[in-house]
Formats: sequence, structure tokens, C-alpha cells
Amino acid sequence: SNVNLLTEESVWKTFPKRNDAAHKGTFGTSLLVAGSDEMPGSAVLAAIGAIRSGTGKLIMATSHLAATTIASRVPEATFMLNGLETISEGEVPEKIIAAGIGPGIADITKAQKAVDELMKLDIPLVIDAGALRERKDWHARGPVIITPHPGEFSRLTGRSVKEIQANRIKLARKFSKKYDLAVVLKGKYSIIAFPNGETFVNPTGNSGLAKGGSGDVLTGMLVSMLATHDNYQDAVKNAVYIHGLCADIWIEKYSETSMVASDFAQLLPEVLGKIEGNR
Amino acid sequence: SNVNLLTEESVWKTFPKRNDAAHKGTFGTSLLVAGSDEMPGSAVLAAIGAIRSGTGKLIMATSHLAATTIASRVPEATFMLNGLETISEGEVPEKIIAAGIGPGIADITKAQKAVDELMKLDIPLVIDAGALRERKDWHARGPVIITPHPGEFSRLTGRSVKEIQANRIKLARKFSKKYDLAVVLKGKYSIIAFPNGETFVNPTGNSGLAKGGSGDVLTGMLVSMLATHDNYQDAVKNAVYIHGLCADIWIEKYSETSMVASDFAQLLPEVLGKIEGNR
Amino acid sequence: SNVNLLTEESVWKTFPKRNDAAHKGTFGTSLLVAGSDEMPGSAVLAAIGAIRSGTGKLIMATSHLAATTIASRVPEATFMLNGLETISEGEVPEKIIAAGIGPGIADITKAQKAVDELMKLDIPLVIDAGALRERKDWHARGPVIITPHPGEFSRLTGRSVKEIQANRIKLARKFSKKYDLAVVLKGKYSIIAFPNGETFVNPTGNSGLAKGGSGDVLTGMLVSMLATHDNYQDAVKNAVYIHGLCADIWIEKYSETSMVASDFAQLLPEVLGKIEGNR
Amino acid sequence: SNVNLLTEESVWKTFPKRNDAAHKGTFGTSLLVAGSDEMPGSAVLAAIGAIRSGTGKLIMATSHLAATTIASRVPEATFMLNGLETISEGEVPEKIIAAGIGPGIADITKAQKAVDELMKLDIPLVIDAGALRERKDWHARGPVIITPHPGEFSRLTGRSVKEIQANRIKLARKFSKKYDLAVVLKGKYSIIAFPNGETFVNPTGNSGLAKGGSGDVLTGMLVSMLATHDNYQDAVKNAVYIHGLCADIWIEKYSETSMVASDFAQLLPEVLGKIEGNR
Ligand SMILES: Nc1ncnc2c1ncn2[C@@H]1O[C@H](COP(=O)(O)O)[C@@H](O)[C@H]1O
Ligand SMILES: Nc1ncnc2c1ncn2[C@@H]1O[C@H](COP(=O)(O)O)[C@@H](O)[C@H]1O
Ligand SMILES: Nc1ncnc2c1ncn2[C@@H]1O[C@H](COP(=O)(O)O)[C@@H](O)[C@H]1O
Ligand SMILES: Nc1ncnc2c1ncn2[C@@H]1O[C@H](COP(=O)(O)O)[C@@H](O)[C@H]1O
Ligand SMILES: [Mg+2]
Ligand SMILES: [Mg+2]
Ligand SMILES: [Mg+2]
Ligand SMILES: [Mg+2]
Repeated sequence: SNVNLLTEESVWKTFPKRNDAAHKGTFGTSLLVAGSDEMPGSAVLAAIGAIRSGTGKLIMATSHLAATTIASRVPEATFMLNGLETISEGEVPEKIIAAGIGPGIADITKAQKAVDELMKLDIPLVIDAGALRERKDWHARGPVIITPHPGEFSRLTGRSVKEIQANRIKLARKFSKKYDLAVVLKGKYSIIAFPNGETFVNPTGNSGLAKGGSGDVLTGMLVSMLATHDNYQDAVKNAVYIHGLCADIWIEKYSETSMVASDFAQLLPEVLGKIEGNR
Repeated sequence: SNVNLLTEESVWKTFPKRNDAAHKGTFGTSLLVAGSDEMPGSAVLAAIGAIRSGTGKLIMATSHLAATTIASRVPEATFMLNGLETISEGEVPEKIIAAGIGPGIADITKAQKAVDELMKLDIPLVIDAGALRERKDWHARGPVIITPHPGEFSRLTGRSVKEIQANRIKLARKFSKKYDLAVVLKGKYSIIAFPNGETFVNPTGNSGLAKGGSGDVLTGMLVSMLATHDNYQDAVKNAVYIHGLCADIWIEKYSETSMVASDFAQLLPEVLGKIEGNR
Repeated sequence: SNVNLLTEESVWKTFPKRNDAAHKGTFGTSLLVAGSDEMPGSAVLAAIGAIRSGTGKLIMATSHLAATTIASRVPEATFMLNGLETISEGEVPEKIIAAGIGPGIADITKAQKAVDELMKLDIPLVIDAGALRERKDWHARGPVIITPHPGEFSRLTGRSVKEIQANRIKLARKFSKKYDLAVVLKGKYSIIAFPNGETFVNPTGNSGLAKGGSGDVLTGMLVSMLATHDNYQDAVKNAVYIHGLCADIWIEKYSETSMVASDFAQLLPEVLGKIEGNR
Repeated sequence: SNVNLLTEESVWKTFPKRNDAAHKGTFGTSLLVAGSDEMPGSAVLAAIGAIRSGTGKLIMATSHLAATTIASRVPEATFMLNGLETISEGEVPEKIIAAGIGPGIADITKAQKAVDELMKLDIPLVIDAGALRERKDWHARGPVIITPHPGEFSRLTGRSVKEIQANRIKLARKFSKKYDLAVVLKGKYSIIAFPNGETFVNPTGNSGLAKGGSGDVLTGMLVSMLATHDNYQDAVKNAVYIHGLCADIWIEKYSETSMVASDFAQLLPEVLGKIEGNR
């Protein structure tokens, strides 16, 4: 099948309209398992990405130190403290309709157990960063979306970064088909490969994103859009496209060198406002 | 009796003018019992709503983790640490002239005991969220205002959300008369039913409010306006109207999907400024 | 002697010019003893007032919880943790050239002991809020400035607030002469009485200041201006005038009801910029 | 050899262009050993300086209290908790390509041991503030840059501040040659002396920088630019020049008296944007 470029028009068409009479339940509860004492900021950034992308409620399963930090930047979030531990032991919050795991997580064993638990739920699940490790079994009840950068994809596939970069589309597709999951292979021209063979290339984004934290915002946006879109593929495509678009708009005025993840994330209200206007 | 739509003109007429020679004592001390380690952000949002709505002083009865967070966002607040526990044991701060309880509170038993204690004071009392549970006795010395969303009203009345939504005005009025308290039944077109039968429908607000945290800001605004208005009914009507108005003004420029509670709360200085100008 | 109104022109004339070749030592180190776990925000606000008013360095003697909070809002400050205790036991930081004590302090006994210690230094000392209690001995090596609001002045003088408000100038002067210290009797038309009999009335400020936290910002501004002005009387007059001026400028655009202490404090860079331009 | 004035044109010429296809690894990981419970803010300011100056990743080796604070202001950073201790015991994070040590560090012994460890790496190393003490041995595998203000240079050289200020260029050069390291002797007209004899004078900056915290931002900028420039001398020159330039632009609009370190640091996105545009 073909490879298509993501376009702004396709975002306009598929971005969901909020029902006037909606209440927070309408938009569902998202869960992010993210952050640790060493990497609290990743959870902050994922929370910012999520809260700005439409989810009705947001639960952050995280560490104490990270929770304090998130609460001051994203007071709209609620917490499951010692979240990674609790979830890895099988206790998962109720009523969640989309989940993500990985940003700022260091404990690989617990992360894998938590992934096991989340895979039992019939909801879309984003697996990123610290939770992205080789697995025997990638089977889940709902759609799985993995978001490796080339280094992480190398860890997953055993191939060198160089080989991956030379065969981005092919390898993303192959992995997607083999394990029946969506692959977002990040980096300039991120590749999105769905298990049905549909493949997309994202034209947005710039080298200002080549900095710690950029991917964490994306994970938050993905989960939140998965919670609010009817079609999970649209959610993935829209999150990836809009993430880069915000970064592109930011550097129209400011330095690519100086841009940090919280900068472009702050443009979501403006950028989504334009998208809603064109919808 | 009739049901009236709230209007901006009525807000202009009833919004209190600050006396030029006032000092902070003139505007009284408000108390918010809110926040816990799992939900510190609700207390932050309630504090923001309160501090921006005119109260002279603000005491936050809250948890340690929540206090740290609030202090950095709302340095004007002071704290009663372990506030829920302390108040539930009967120790209430002195000189408060309006109180609210509920946002971000998880411990139902303590919440109910704290409500018991606050009901002994002759001041207006807002009961929301975690403090909103069925009670045998709703009798209090001062006016009581409850602020359930349909889910919470279902919990209070034993009726289904569906039934409630189909009979919003009737059921709000009924509960208000039966228990002699003001009911703010939230959601699109919030209903305000006072025990004297007067009933109002609020036209402001939009689906961007359908997100965790929106109601917490309202609770803070309500308490603060109760502290500064002579007539408690005006305070309730003004808080509800202005809360939605801020949200409506925010989405003139930005995305409904992206709006979070702290966004529209930030417009209070501008929106109240216009109201004061038209007063 | 006469009573004079403070004017913007007099501020322009006396506001110090920074020497081009200055280093941070030139502007001296200020000390603020402020904040506690129950009232961390007062210390945050005092720190904001100080850091924006010219001091070279700022040491906050405060509690752990307050320090975390201050560090995120005023990263330019350094800390003496458990500061009140340490200073009350006679251990005072070196090289400070102006000090203030009181905002957000609850422990009266320790506060008084700390005042005793600070009075041994030959530097201007601002005493406010929790540190403002009756004393047998108000004698200090350097100039003392007390900043009571009418309630605190009532506590100091044993007179009723009503009597104080009816005789603001007379009573401020009397106290100033009797104890050889400067009195800033706050409230609408703050009175500044110096021990040499010179007395001033401040025309700036508005009822938006009638809120917890406003006075804390003033204490910080006073200490910082005392550290950078040659003449301590000018420092006191300028701090009081500019404090109210910022508040007046803020409400030109925004609501008096909504204004909080951190709002007008944020205007210091702009307001001092204009003053420096007219100097 | 001659002494040259740094110019904006030279910055334009040497400021690195980000490769379009870069990923965060391209720009390397920077390490800052900074901050303590007494001085958490210095680490916040150094982190802000670093994150805004191009580094791909930033590891803050710091204390618990400082980490909480940094995480809320710079969520893009990751942490090595108890970082000073750990590094002083020889455990250094992997893959770092530039490092800085000193801002907000109080423990001299541990600081010196940590410097010993960092000197074993073949990367540029900035030594500042609390880590700047006399050493027998200044030899390191990579280039060393020290950034004393005159007081600190006095401590290093045993000469009086007065003598230093009267012979800034000569003494900076002498120290640079003697110990084979770059000296940034700070203050109005900062001197940059490289071991090859090349010497520069910086014309940017103003007395608004004469405040606690200004130097911490510089240290962060230096490390981050060292991580992203090919030539370490260009990195040092650009960081020093741009640091002062931001301060100069800030005071075009606002007060020199009020400027704090976080103010001018916030201009980096705008200022670097202009530099990139002229490149
Ligand atoms: N040079 C680049 N051009 C466009 N997008 C980039 C570039 N570098 C990184 N990104 C994006 O930034 C994010 C980095 O994610 P991560 O590596 O997890 O922090 C991904 O969304 C990448 O696609
Ligand atoms: N669709 C909507 N239209 C207007 N207002 C809404 C809507 N959804 C929620 N709200 C308001 O947002 C707040 C939500 O409160 P809560 O459910 O406690 O967070 C209440 O003030 C609701 O009236
Ligand atoms: N109505 C008012 N008009 C002008 N200034 C006021 C007014 N109320 C309070 N202030 C000022 O606000 C500050 C309050 O200090 P405090 O009572 O310690 O918080 C003092 O500087 C007062 O002079
Ligand atoms: N009067 C001044 N003019 C220009 N730059 C200054 C002045 N005072 C301090 N600085 C700069 O501000 C920073 C102060 O560093 P530090 O003393 O470590 O806080 C250095 O970069 C100095 O060069
Ligand atoms: Mg990542
Ligand atoms: Mg609610
Ligand atoms: Mg006060
Ligand atoms: Mg320094």
C-alpha cells in the first residue's frame, strides 16, 4: 500500500468537535504512567501535552516528587501516587478510556509488568520511552501504539540506528505488521505505520524538537487525543502532525536553539483554536 | 414561581463596590477545605478562584503536599495544615465569614464530620465534590449552597443521571425546598434553585468547561463572592454567571479543546474589571 | 512640624542611580526573616518585593516548606533554613546591610528574640506583622521602621482601632517620638512618621490592596530599598509610595476586586523603569 | 598578543546552525553540578541558562529540594539526586559532552573532589562559584573554563580585589597561561583570557546584572554552548556576549534596579532568534 504525507487539511477534517452539552465524562479519563524522582519533568511535560489536547480527566500515575511538580504546573490533573508500583501489581484506576506509559520511567521491570496490566484493558495504549523494551508478547485487548525514536527502535529490533535510519518506512511497517500494533518511528519525518498497512509520513517539526522532553509532550497529546477521537488512527495522525506544527509555529518568532518542550506545548490553545476554526 | 435567565446586566447591578477606605478585614476571611495528596490541584484551582474574587483573606485547610503547591501559585493564601482532620475534630479557624468544602477531598467520613462542624457556624457554606454525600440532616445555621454536577446529584438523590438531566429544573427545585438549601445543578445551563423558590438558568459557559478542575474554580469563586456580597443569592448568581463568562471569553481566542480551568480563571481580573466599569 | 504629601517628583529625585561599574556587593545583602509552614506565601511575597527593588543579594531566613516555594518563584534568593530559630539563638548571617522580620511568622517568642538579635546590628531594620508586638525596649543600633496596619498598631499601643483611625497622624507621631523609630501606619493614606518629627502622608494605593499579602510585598520592598538608598528616610518614603503606585497602575486595566499582591509586584520592573527614566 | 572587543558580528558568524535532521543525541548531554538545600535557586538559574542555549539533554546533579524546584521551572531537565556526593565519589553520568560545576554549592571539600573527577573526562569543564577554590593541580583532559568574579578571583590568586580590578587583563592572562585554562574574569567589561594568549573584552551587560543569580545563568549558558559549538573558544565568547546582550535588551524596556536573572534569561529565545536570523 501507499505511503501518504500527513496534511493540515486531513487534520481539519478529522479533529473532533466537542458536543455543546458535553460534560467531563463525555471526554473520558486518560491515564499516564510517567515520571520518577530522577525524571519528574517528563511527567510534567506529558501532563501538559495531555491536558491541552481534550481529555475530560487526567490521572497521573507517578512518584511523590513528580506529583508535587505536576500539581503546580497542571493543577487539573489528579494522582495515583506510587503509580508505577501500584499498576504493576495489577491495580489499575477505573473508567479510563486511553492510557500511556513510559516518559520519565526508569524501572524497567516494573514498567514491563505495568504494560502487561494495561494490555488487559480494552483501550488504546501508548508505549513510550522507559516502557519501550523488547517483549515476547505484544498482544493487547485494545490498539497499541509505540513511539520509539531511532535509538529506542534499535533497542526493540536489535538493528543498528544506522540501518534503521536508512530503512525507516520499511522497518516501521515490518514491525507494525509483525506485532499488530501502530509504530510511530520518530525523528525528522516521523513514520506512522498501522497494522493494516496504511503508512504516513509527517512533514511537520524541526530540529528545535531535538531536545529532551519533546517526545514526552507527544505521548501526552497522543493519549488525550485517543481519548477524544472516535477513530484511533486519526488520533495518532493528528497528534503527531499537530505536535510538529506547534514547534514550527514557535520558531517563526523564536530561536530553534532555545525552544524547549514546554514552549511549543503552550501553543496548543492557539493552534487547536485555528484547527477548530477550519473544521 | 418563574424561572429566570441570568443576565450580565443583573451582575453589573449587584456586583459589590469596594469601599475606598477598606482594609483586608472589611472583606472578611474565607475558608476552603480542599485538596489531598492525591488531588492537590483541586485545591490550587479553588484557591485561584477564591483569591481572584474579592475575599480579604483566604485560609486553605489542606494537606502538606497541596499546601506547597498552592503556596507557589497563590502566595496570598495561608494554611491550616491537615486541615480536613483538624476541622473534622471540631477545631475551626476563627473569624471566617464564608466557607467551602469538597474539591479534591477523598476521605468521605472526615468530610462529613467537617461539614457537620462548619454547619454550626452562622456563615454561608458551599458544599461540593468529595463533601457532597447523602446526609440525614442538611440543617445549618447559615445558608447552604450545594454544587453537584449531574453525577453527584444522582448520588445525592438516588435518581439516575438520565432522569436528572430530563428534569433538571424540577429536581433542583424539589431538593432545594425539601432541604432548605440552594442547589446549583451544574452542566450546560446550570440551574440555581433557592429555597424561596426563586430559580435561575445560567446561559454562560461552554464545553471547554467539561474537564476536571472547572468546578473547583467555581467553588472558590462562590466562597469568595459569598464573603463580599451582602445578599448571598446575588453572590451565587454572580459567581455562576461570571465563571461561565470567563470561559466564553477565553474561547473567543483559543481552543475549547485546549482550555483548562486555570486558563479561564486567569481572565477574572479582566472580566471583573469590565463588570466594575459597567457597575 | 508639617505634614507633607509624598509626591512622584520626590521619588524621582531621590531614587538611587545604579553605578555602571557596580557588582552585586555594591548593592549589599538584604535579610528577610519571614514565612512558616502555615504562612509560606508571605515569605514568597516579601521575597518578590525585595528582589525587584534593587538589593544585590537576598537571604531568606525561613522554613523548609517556604524555601521550596520561594525557590521556584524567586530563584535569585538564597536561604537560611530554620532561619527564625537560628537567628533567635543569635546566629545572624554576615555582611547584611538591611533586614526585615515578620511576614508569615507565627511564633511570637522566637520572633521577639530574633528582633533582639537583629537590633544589635548597625543596620536599618523593618519590623512587621508577626514580629510586631509590644516591647519594653525598642532601642536598636540602626534605624528601626515598624509597619503596622491599624489592627497591629492597636496591639502595640493598647488603643482601639477606632481611636487609632480617628488620630492616625497624631498617634503615629507620638509612637515614633516616644520610641525613636519610624512608624509606617498602613491603610488608605498611610502615615510615615520619623523620629525627627517629619511626617508624610502617602496618596497612592487603592482598596485592591485590602487583601492578605499586600503588606508582605511592602516589607520586602522596604528592606531592599533600605539596602540601596543612602538616606533611610528616602528609602521608606519611596517604598511606600511606589508600592501604592504599582497597585494604582494595575487597576487602570484590571479589577480592584481581583488584584492580588503578586499582580502589582509584577509591575515593579515597568514602574521603576519609568522612575529611572525621569530621574 | 592583542586584546579584542567581542562583537555581535563575530557571534553571528560562529553561532552554530542546527542540522535539520538532528536528534537530541546530536546536541549532546550537558551536566550541571549545582544547587543545595540552602541555594536551590542557583541551580534553577543555571538550568534555565543551559536549557535555552541548545544542549540536547541536561542532567542536573543536585539536591532533593533543588530538584523539585528545577523540575517545575525546567521540566526538560533530568536529575542525579545527591549529585554532588555521587560525583565526588567518582560516579559520573555517561555520555556527557560538557560539564559545569559550582552554582549554589556550599560543600567545598566535596566540590573539589567532584572537580577532580570531572577533570578526568575529555570534555570542556566550567568551574564557577562554590567550586572555585585554589587547587594545586588545574590539569584536566579537556579544556577548563573558570568564571570568577573579582571576589572569587581574589580567593584564587591571593591578591586583593582592588589589585585585581586595577589589572584585570594582565592578571586574567597570567592565570590563564600559568594553569593552561580559560579565565572569564567577570564584572563590567568581563575579560576572557585563553591559554593561547588570545584575550577578549566583553562590551555587553549592565549594572542590573549586579545581583545574585546573574552568574549562575551564565554558567548554564556556557556549558550548553560548549556542548553545541565545535570550537570551545567560540562557545565561551558567544555565551559571555549573549548573556550581557540579553540584559541590555531587557533594560531597554524595564528597570535596571528590578531586573533579575530569570528576566534576562527569558529573552534567550528572542535574542538567539535574531542571531540565527543574521547568521
Ligand atoms: N530534527 C527533527 N525534525 C523534526 N522533528 C524532530 C526532530 N528531532 C526530533 N523531532 C521530534 O521530536 C520528538 C522527539 O522525541 P523524543 O526523542 O522521545 O524526545 C519526536 O516527536 C520527533 O519526531
Ligand atoms: N458543556 C458545558 N457547557 C457549559 N458549562 C459546562 C459544560 N460542562 C461543564 N460545565 C460547567 O463546568 C463546571 C464543571 O464542574 P465539575 O463537573 O465539578 O468540574 C460547572 O460549572 C459546569 O456548569
Ligand atoms: N483601602 C486602601 N487604600 C490604599 N492602600 C491600602 C488600602 N488597604 C490596604 N492598603 C495598603 O495595603 C497594605 C496592607 O498591608 P497589610 O495589612 O499588612 O497586608 C498596606 O501597604 C496598606 O497601606
Ligand atoms: N556592572 C556590571 N556591568 C556589566 N556586567 C556585570 C556587571 N555586574 C555584574 N555583571 C555580570 O553579571 C554576572 C555576575 O556574575 P556573579 O557575580 O557570579 O553573579 C557576570 O556575568 C558579570 O560579568
Ligand atoms: Mg522520548
Ligand atoms: Mg467538581
Ligand atoms: Mg501585614
Ligand atoms: Mg556567581
